[in-house]
Parts: sequence; structure tokens; C-alpha cells
Amino acid sequence: MHSLTPLFAPSGIIVVGASSSPEKLGAVMAQSLSNYPGPVELVNSRGENGMHTSIAAAAAAIPGGPDLAVLCVPAAATAQALRDSAANGARAALVCAGGFAEAGGPGVEFAHQVEAAVRDTGIRLLGPNTSGFFVPHRNLRASFVPGVAELEPGSVAVVAASGGVNHVLAFHLQRSGAGVSLAVGIGAGTDITAPDVLDYLITDEQTKAVALHLETVSDGPALIDAVSRLSAVKPVVALVVGRNDVSEFAQSHTGALATSWRTTRAVLKQAGAVIVDDENQLVAAVTALAGRRLAPAADPGVGLITGQAGPGLLIADALHSAGVTLPRLAQHSQDIIGTLLPPLTFQANPVDTGRPGPGYEKIVAAVANDPAIDVVAVYGLTEPVADLPLAVANSGVAGTMPFVIGVDGPEGDLERARKSAQQHELPLISGPTSLAHGLTALVNDSRGQFVRAVSAQRHFTWPDLNGPWDENRAKELLGALGIATPARRRCSTRAAAHEALAELATPVAVKLLDAAVLHKTEIGGVHLGVNSAEAMDRALDGLEAAGAREFLIEAMAPSGVDLVVGVRRDPVFGPIVVLGLGGTAAEVFADIAIRSAPLSDQAAEGMPNDLQARELLYGFRSGPMLDTTELAGVLIKLGDALVSNDAIAEIEINPLRLTHHGLVALDAVVINVEEDKK
Amino acid sequence: MHSLTPLFAPSGIIVVGASSSPEKLGAVMAQSLSNYPGPVELVNSRGENGMHTSIAAAAAAIPGGPDLAVLCVPAAATAQALRDSAANGARAALVCAGGFAEAGGPGVEFAHQVEAAVRDTGIRLLGPNTSGFFVPHRNLRASFVPGVAELEPGSVAVVAASGGVNHVLAFHLQRSGAGVSLAVGIGAGTDITAPDVLDYLITDEQTKAVALHLETVSDGPALIDAVSRLSAVKPVVALVVGRNDVSEFAQSHTGALATSWRTTRAVLKQAGAVIVDDENQLVAAVTALAGRRLAPAADPGVGLITGQAGPGLLIADALHSAGVTLPRLAQHSQDIIGTLLPPLTFQANPVDTGRPGPGYEKIVAAVANDPAIDVVAVYGLTEPVADLPLAVANSGVAGTMPFVIGVDGPEGDLERARKSAQQHELPLISGPTSLAHGLTALVNDSRGQFVRAVSAQRHFTWPDLNGPWDENRAKELLGALGIATPARRRCSTRAAAHEALAELATPVAVKLLDAAVLHKTEIGGVHLGVNSAEAMDRALDGLEAAGAREFLIEAMAPSGVDLVVGVRRDPVFGPIVVLGLGGTAAEVFADIAIRSAPLSDQAAEGMPNDLQARELLYGFRSGPMLDTTELAGVLIKLGDALVSNDAIAEIEINPLRLTHHGLVALDAVVINVEEDKK
Repeated sequence: MHSLTPLFAPSGIIVVGASSSPEKLGAVMAQSLSNYPGPVELVNSRGENGMHTSIAAAAAAIPGGPDLAVLCVPAAATAQALRDSAANGARAALVCAGGFAEAGGPGVEFAHQVEAAVRDTGIRLLGPNTSGFFVPHRNLRASFVPGVAELEPGSVAVVAASGGVNHVLAFHLQRSGAGVSLAVGIGAGTDITAPDVLDYLITDEQTKAVALHLETVSDGPALIDAVSRLSAVKPVVALVVGRNDVSEFAQSHTGALATSWRTTRAVLKQAGAVIVDDENQLVAAVTALAGRRLAPAADPGVGLITGQAGPGLLIADALHSAGVTLPRLAQHSQDIIGTLLPPLTFQANPVDTGRPGPGYEKIVAAVANDPAIDVVAVYGLTEPVADLPLAVANSGVAGTMPFVIGVDGPEGDLERARKSAQQHELPLISGPTSLAHGLTALVNDSRGQFVRAVSAQRHFTWPDLNGPWDENRAKELLGALGIATPARRRCSTRAAAHEALAELATPVAVKLLDAAVLHKTEIGGVHLGVNSAEAMDRALDGLEAAGAREFLIEAMAPSGVDLVVGVRRDPVFGPIVVLGLGGTAAEVFADIAIRSAPLSDQAAEGMPNDLQARELLYGFRSGPMLDTTELAGVLIKLGDALVSNDAIAEIEINPLRLTHHGLVALDAVVINVEEDKK
Repeated sequence: MHSLTPLFAPSGIIVVGASSSPEKLGAVMAQSLSNYPGPVELVNSRGENGMHTSIAAAAAAIPGGPDLAVLCVPAAATAQALRDSAANGARAALVCAGGFAEAGGPGVEFAHQVEAAVRDTGIRLLGPNTSGFFVPHRNLRASFVPGVAELEPGSVAVVAASGGVNHVLAFHLQRSGAGVSLAVGIGAGTDITAPDVLDYLITDEQTKAVALHLETVSDGPALIDAVSRLSAVKPVVALVVGRNDVSEFAQSHTGALATSWRTTRAVLKQAGAVIVDDENQLVAAVTALAGRRLAPAADPGVGLITGQAGPGLLIADALHSAGVTLPRLAQHSQDIIGTLLPPLTFQANPVDTGRPGPGYEKIVAAVANDPAIDVVAVYGLTEPVADLPLAVANSGVAGTMPFVIGVDGPEGDLERARKSAQQHELPLISGPTSLAHGLTALVNDSRGQFVRAVSAQRHFTWPDLNGPWDENRAKELLGALGIATPARRRCSTRAAAHEALAELATPVAVKLLDAAVLHKTEIGGVHLGVNSAEAMDRALDGLEAAGAREFLIEAMAPSGVDLVVGVRRDPVFGPIVVLGLGGTAAEVFADIAIRSAPLSDQAAEGMPNDLQARELLYGFRSGPMLDTTELAGVLIKLGDALVSNDAIAEIEINPLRLTHHGLVALDAVVINVEEDKK
């Protein structure tokens, strides 16, 4: 049995701090729980209305004891109530109250007491500071919001950071027709956090898709692990709040290049979640995903059948913006459709049916049977004669092909369409753009499952990784990893530098070499294009003036496109790999790709495709073509370096130049953990 | 009387091609119009069910004649029916049928006949190829979609390119509570186009806000003019489709730098419209704007009062992403709120009220009275005891301050909240992100009205503008306009070039000078950093090898940030001004600002702020600071050059370098209209 079963499927419940004054939260909660079909016993210290006066008495009234204690007592009394509940058989508790650590003052001590009670008793605690949870198909509703009584059983689980957002999503999912199977507001997360609930949902049969709302992440690896395991068996859609939280920007280790908002979204996607931008997209996504999931594929094709061209254009435009493919139908499919529709409509995909006629079901079948199509969307204004879900159900292909129905019309018509869709187990979404969001989620879920792969354990004998690292040692490490660097000479004398120039027989870069200097350029420590003895002397004069005692003489690299790749230890998610373009674009446009390490081949190969400016890497204006596999190799090795070596805090190659002859690391910095803490 | 009054408020209607077979469109349309309170007479050539057999007979049955003829006849019969209708008193007609120009074949001829009938009779024609229009408050519904019978009178006018989208928007607006005052699908737009309807709406009293959906624009200046005049009296929100229409990309004159999708959005915004990205945003925007409009302001402040912190965070995050300001409340306001709320909630804005208590109305008043606040949003989950619209209405400030109410809850609660909001004439939106979209629209409407200003007529004596233009002449034109260029010498001999190097006494650029060569760099026609006689000889050798007969010797400009500014004649909107950053960013990230010329000072000064990379222009890493007024001057003058001189097709300054000493045009191209047509 899962440790959260006593919370979500309790054999019995005690409500501690129940009240008979209807305006009190203890009364609202008791009312909310009164429809639970199992035993519910109320505790009121004054024995109001014949309630039990002690936890022990209430628990004794439940055969086998209470699984769940719902506490409506002040913060100061919570820890003792937890201990009493645990002592009398409760294995889970809900604490909605605030007034703990977030309130400061005595609340901090109350929070410590609650933590100790959880530790000592092993009771699983949801809260504090949440507005509860509900499991409609069990008639279990532990919430202060009266409207949850109207929530009907559905197929989407909501795991929300905030109790308020949990309720918002539940009401919107009810309206979308998908409904909730289970919905939780995590609140303070003293004990139970999102990964715990996600783990529970793996085996929750009512749950077909999961809506995850995150504000902060306390344990990154646990979250990644839970999302990874859950998304392997059912789709997970994540909404991460805090795009603009400036204080969060500041917390992030490398500043503007990688905020934790971006990192959280990137690693959740890598773990198999579908990422959305707002709660409207979240609702559309899980509504679509609560139907049939697409098989994993690199680029699933969407077939769109629309009754009206104008809304069809909105849908196609939105899909295109989201990077979703509407493949042209095969000639064979078009030939079939051509016999069913007047010649004036567009039939190659989207298929513009005009007013659905008698051949409609055959058109649906023809699109579904096209080899390029992995999911079919059917859109139309509601009409008395046209029942789109029924038509799809009758097409003979609904049992094997994922479908999403899109309809718009007056409320009564919509309600009838929703009922028909539910009856035929087809997802239905109102609104062209929302339909596109649902389709995008289906496609991205399929792509995410396709890319997911367990990283192979790689074996490598690491060189000496003790600091300090100057540029030469950093490049030796890159060389050991198989990453190309320019030919170079480390020189302690001017004579050796001149000799190096002659040996390298090409214009060289002349650099100050000193592990203590991280930003050589800013102190005049780099001279480029040195191609004569005189120029070398001028360069060495400059470096000596800047304090150089050693020089690095390095062959100049051919021109190309500069990348920046880095690996660092994210405070939440651990080793992460970051890829961007050189110059200011990565920073100004926040155009970077992020993954957590270790990287699978697929995850690494997908990174350049995340960049908005990716076209610059593939022969832009006769420029060099990126070998995606070569870059993936660099990214994988750098990630492994951090994963395998606790000593290393950070490695950055800036720039990693893409040339017509492949990738070359022109400068590199390695920082060890102890240095990082200085 | 407006020429569209006979269409939207007809004294009487004839339905030509009415039918008694319920499956025929002529029957559906007759049914749809049957509730119109004015006289409606049906024409059926076979006299089915006692219908009139001729237009003349039907028209004669209407005292004063029929204003409107609704034609449900085949394409081949449409032109004659139009002529007959006009001859019998109809001043407007609706033609829903397709089968005209878009169908090819004989349809092209039918289209010509319809155009001739319109031209000859002066009848105003809506269609062909539309699903009609409706004016619910007049019980006038000319549509084939039965659901429109359920549309109740509202306050938003819909002007949609597509009949289907017109219906989608109408149903969504009904659900949002705003409802439609008038809704039109333009269809083929043979006669009546969007600008005509926008013009009609200026004086339509039922319409408080306008939702405009555009697919293509036939007459850009007419659209800009209509939006400009309408948005001066009521808010206009525009959704432009076709972000990804690749064929449209290709049509655009300058290719990737400015698609007509971008241009259309930019010039509509400049004309005073609020621009949205999808129909969900459109519905939220007009729902908010159908309430009280904000006064014009450069940066209106939003006050947010939220009953739950989690949804409040979603709202604040979305507002921040949209560039909307949530100013910190004044200490005075916070002091008042501090007496009304427990000390633990956040009170500076957003104001986190927790569960709305007895002091709620005073909190609303305190936020509304704060000097930094121009609009107040109030959000909460529905509760039996809390009627948010009523609380706002009772706050004593609802008569002067714009408000938007946001609520979420079960359907019945929402419906009650909507009714209360309607009763108190307050806009209400469900969903945190949708509420943020509504607020963003209010703020952007206010900003748009603030920036709008009639461009001053500027007087300037233009130099000789005949082509051909080499770089030197182009720079002379810039000089005449007051735009700085580097010191330069035009040289026909090598000796003169050497003399110029000595005179300019600085490293110089040595360029091939030839009006026939537009891309000098690509043929080796530019040598930079020439600072010695030897280098000059090498440069001149190179230019002569590239075919140069004249040279431009030019002082090298200091380093800085390169911009690209251009003016060109957009095929739809006429003279437009484009600003972007140099390099590949403008192209790869589509990061450009567009305006139509002539530019007002405010419009020009707003252009750099449109750029995502604007931070690069304002002292980025010790770089130069842009003087926005100086750049605005350049943009205004270039725009005026096109507006005032039909001979000029295009001027591009690439790069216009931002230096620590201001803006310098380093290269310029002028193309005359006749050259452009070659």
C-alpha cells in the first residue's frame, strides 16, 4: 500500500477542531467531509452538538481506527494534535492552517514542533497552509471552498503548489469536461511534496493525465525522478510559475543566462513532462491528453478536418507557431476525399469539409488512415444535425487513432457535444486556439516519450582534477575528453614564445596564463593575430605590463559561429548543461538550451534545436554546418565530467567555435568546488 | 444616415430564394430572420407556401420598400437579383453563397456581374461567401447557424474576415458575459469591407468595444484611417491571422525582415488598436474594454486585490510578461490597508486579502484611491458569502475608477457572479491568465491613445531626387536631412585618394563608388582601417580589380552598436519605417519595429522600445546610450522623405551606428521607384 493511501482513500476520518458555528472553518471542513461514505467523526474540545471531546474518543468510534486526521486547530495546538492522532491510529493528516514558519515569530517554533511530530510518529502530513484536497470519485472533499461539492469525478489529477490554483484548475477542468480524479494543493510542503503525490498517481487508476503546477522546487532530483517515472505510464503537463520573479533571477547561480524558471521547465521537459505557459493551456493540454495518448514519435503528424475555413486557419496558424506538423495527405487519401467533397474545398490537410455532409465519417477514416497522420482533430460549429463525436465514433477508426474534437456554439449545444464526447470517450475542446493547444500537448508528449532514454553509464579514467586550473590545464582536460582545441605552447620565457610562433607557423593568439585570472581580456591579457616577431614582442610587452609570468601561444582558429557551452551545479537540480550562441544574443534574447546531466544521446542531440537562432548553426549564408552528433558528444562529456567528479563546480567553453572543420574550444574555464566557495 | 444603416437596421427585409424545404439554406435563413420585428417578405420563384414569386411583389408588400435584400440564390442568378432588389428599393444586400471568383471557371464572370450590379445601382453588398451577420438587440439575425438564435444583446461588435470566426467569437463573447452588439463576417468583401463596418460602429450606441479579426487587408490606408477614427471614440482590439503563412512571407517586399503579418499588427497598433495573439485573448480584451476605458496614459498602473495568493501570482506573472506595471502602493494606502487586514498578508500590491472580510470594500477603495493606480482588478474564488461585483459597487469608487472582476468557481456560482457584474456594469472574467489578458488590453488601449497624435505637416525643401544614387549621393541626401555621416572624399584618381587619406588624418574606409553596385562588400569593394600609403595602394589595387572607376574615402567611425533603419513602400500600407539591430539578430529573432509614415514624434520615439534587444541601446556593458529623440528624428525624416516624394521607393541605412558621440550613417542605399521596377 502506498504511504499516501490513508490520505486519499482513508478507511475513516476524524476532524479535529470541528465546529458547530457555520462561519468557522472547522464547520466548513466538517460539512465538506460529511458526504464521505466512510466513517467521519468530529472532535470539538467543548463537545459542541455532541461531538467527541478528544481525539482518542473519536478514533475509538471508527472500527479499525481513523486513517486520516483533518486538523482545524490553531498553529500552536497542531503538533500535539498530530501526535495524538498518530497515537490513535491516524497515518495521514491534513493541516490547512497558516501561522507557521511563513508567519515568523512563534510560528517558527510551531513549525519545528510539527516537523518533530511528523519525524517521531511517521504520520504523512499534507500542509500546512493549503486549502486541502479532493477525490470526487470517492466523494472525499477536504476543502474550505463550498463549490467543490459540485465537482464530479473525472480523469485528470491536479498537483498544485497552491491551494487556490488547485481549486481554479479543478473548476476549469470540470468545465472542460475532463474533470478531476484527484486534486491536491501542496501548501507549505512540510512533509508531502509534489513528488510524493506524483508517485502515488502512478498506480491511481482513475487518473489518465496529470496537471502539475509548481512555484518552487525544494528537491530537484526527487521531482525529476517522479516526473520521469510517472510520465512513462501517463502524461504529465507542467505549468511553472515565476518567469518574472526577479529575486529568483538573482538566486540563480549564473545570473541572466539561466534562471531557475528556465531550468525547471527544461529539466521537467527532459524528464518527459509537457510544458505549458499558462493555466488555459494546461487545461487544454490535459483535456486532450486524458483521451488516447500518441505513441512515441520524433515528429507526429496532425490531421485537421474543419467545417469552417476561418477557424481552421486559426488552428493551423497556432499549430505552426507551436512547431507542430500538419503533413500534406498522401495522394491516395486525397483521391478518396475528392470523391466525398465538392472540388472547391481544400483537401490536402487541413481538410475543409464545409458543412459536414453524408460522407463525413468516410472523410474522417481517410484522414486517420493516411500514413503521415498520428492524431486527428475534427472541428466545427455545433449544428442540430451534426454530432461530431458520434461521427468520429462511427468512422471505424476511433478505436485505434487518437482524436480530439473541437466545437464552438451556444452553451446548450456545447453541453450536448460534451456529453456525446464523454459517451464515446473522446476528448472535446472548445475554441480554435485551445484545440491547437490540446493537439500541441499530444504531439509534445509523444516527442518527449520518444526522446526519453536512460543515460548509459559511461566509463572513463579521469585525469588529475585538482585545481587551480589555468587555461592550458583546462584545455588539457578538454583534450582528454576528446574536445578539439587549437595547437598551443605554454611558455615561461619570451624566447620560448618566439620559438612557439615559429613552430606553429601561423598567426597566433598570445595570452596571459594564470589560473588566478578568470577574465584575461578585460586586463589586456589577450593579443590576437600576432604574425611577426615584432608583433610578438609588442604582445609580450603588453602581457608583462598586465602582470603575466607565463604565456600561452596558440594557433588562431578559422572564423565561424561562436557557441557557449557550460556545465554547472544548479542549486536545485544538480549538474546541468547549458548551450547558447556567443555574443549578446543568448543573454538579450534568453536564447539558451538547458538539460540536466547525465545526458542521453537523444537529449544532447535535441539541445541545438531548442535555440531560436538554430538556423545560424546550419550553413547560414555559406557558414559552417553543425554536426549535431559532434556537439552532442561535447555536451555529454562535459555533463559526465560534473556527474562523475564532485570536485568540479563548473566548466565553461566560451567560445566553442563552429568552423568548417568542426568544433574547436577557443577558451575554457574550469572551477573546482572549493574555489567556487571562496 | 450611414450607408450601412439599411443593412444593420433595415426598415424591411426581403429574402430572395426562400424555401419551404427545411434542409435548404433559403429555409434556414428565412427561419433565422423570422424573429425580426420589422416586415420580412419571402420570395420563392415557384411560389411555395404562398411566398411571393417576384422581388417586386415582395418589395411592394413592405410599406416604404425593403431596405435589405437577403439573397439565397445561386451565383449565376445573384447579379440580376441584386439589380431587381435595388430597383425595388433595397439599399443593402447580403449574399452568402460561394461560387464566385474564388471558384474560378464561370464564377469569375458571375463575380464581375455582381461588381457591375453594385457599381450601377449603388446598393451596399455584404459578401459573397459569408455566413452572414447579426444584431441581437434588434432581433436581426441573418445567419445559417441556428445557434445564433440564442445570442443575447451585448456590448461588443465583431468585425471578422471569416463568417466562421464571426460565429466563434459571438458564442465566446456570449459565454464571457460581454455579448455582441453587432457581428459581421466580411467574406469576399466585394463591396463592404472591414473599414466600412468600423466606420458604421463609430456612432453605434450599443457598441462599447470592437473585436476585429483580419486575414488579409485590401486597402491599408482605409483600414488605418477607420481604426484610427474608431479607436478615438471606443476601444478596438485586433487579431491578425497569418503569422506563419509562408506564401505571405514571400509576397512581402523585403522578405524576412518584415512580413505583412508584422506590418499589419504594427500599423494597427500605431492607429490605436490593441493587438492580441489569439481569439481567447481577443475575448478577454474586449470583455474588459466593454467596461470603463482608462484615460490615455504613458504607463497606467494596475492595482490587484486577490483572495488567493496562488492565482494572484499567476496574474502578476502574466502582467509582468506583458509589460504591465503593478506599482507599489503609497505608504498612506498601505497604512489604511494595514488596519483592515491581518499583518501576515502582502499588502503593497498585489494586496492579498485572504478570504474577503468585512473591511473588503474599504480595501478596494484604498487601492483605487492610490495615486499610482489607474485600474483595479479584484480576483477571488466564488463563495456563497462574497459577491465581488457587489462589493466593488459598494466601495464608493466604482463610478470613477475602471475595474475588472476576476472569479473562478463552479458554473452556477460563475453565472451568479456574471449577473451581479452585469447589474453593476462591471466587466467580469474567469481565469487568472484571462484576467491578466483583459487588464493588459485596458493598459495597452490607454497607452495607444496616449501615443496617438496627428503627425505635423513638415515643410522641407527637397534636393534633386533623381536617380541613380551612389553611396556619396545617398549620404548627401542624409546630410540634407540632418543625419550625420562620416567625413568623406569622392575621388576619381588614385592621387586624389592618397590626398584624401592625408586630409582626413585618420584610418579610413576605402570603397568602390558606383550606383550600379548595391552590394559592394560581396565583390571586394570595401577596405576598412586603411592607415598608410602602402595600405591605400593595396586597397585601390583591390578596388580597381573589382572594376572601380571612382572611390569613396571615408573616415572610420568609432565602434558602437549597429542599427538598421529603412523606409520602403509596403504594397498594402504605403510608406513604412523599419528599425532593427544590425547583424543577424533582427533577422533570426524577427526583432524589428515597424510604423507607417508619416510618423508622429511619439510614434517614432516608441520604436526602439518595441525591440526585444533594446537594452543593447542603452549603455549595455559600458556601451553608448541612445538618445531616443535623436533616433526619432532620423526615423521621422526618412519617413517624410517617402511620404513627400513619390520618386523614392526605398532608403536603407545599414548600418546606422550608435556611438558614444551619437548616431552616424555608415552606409546608405536609395532606390528610386523606376529603378525598383526594373
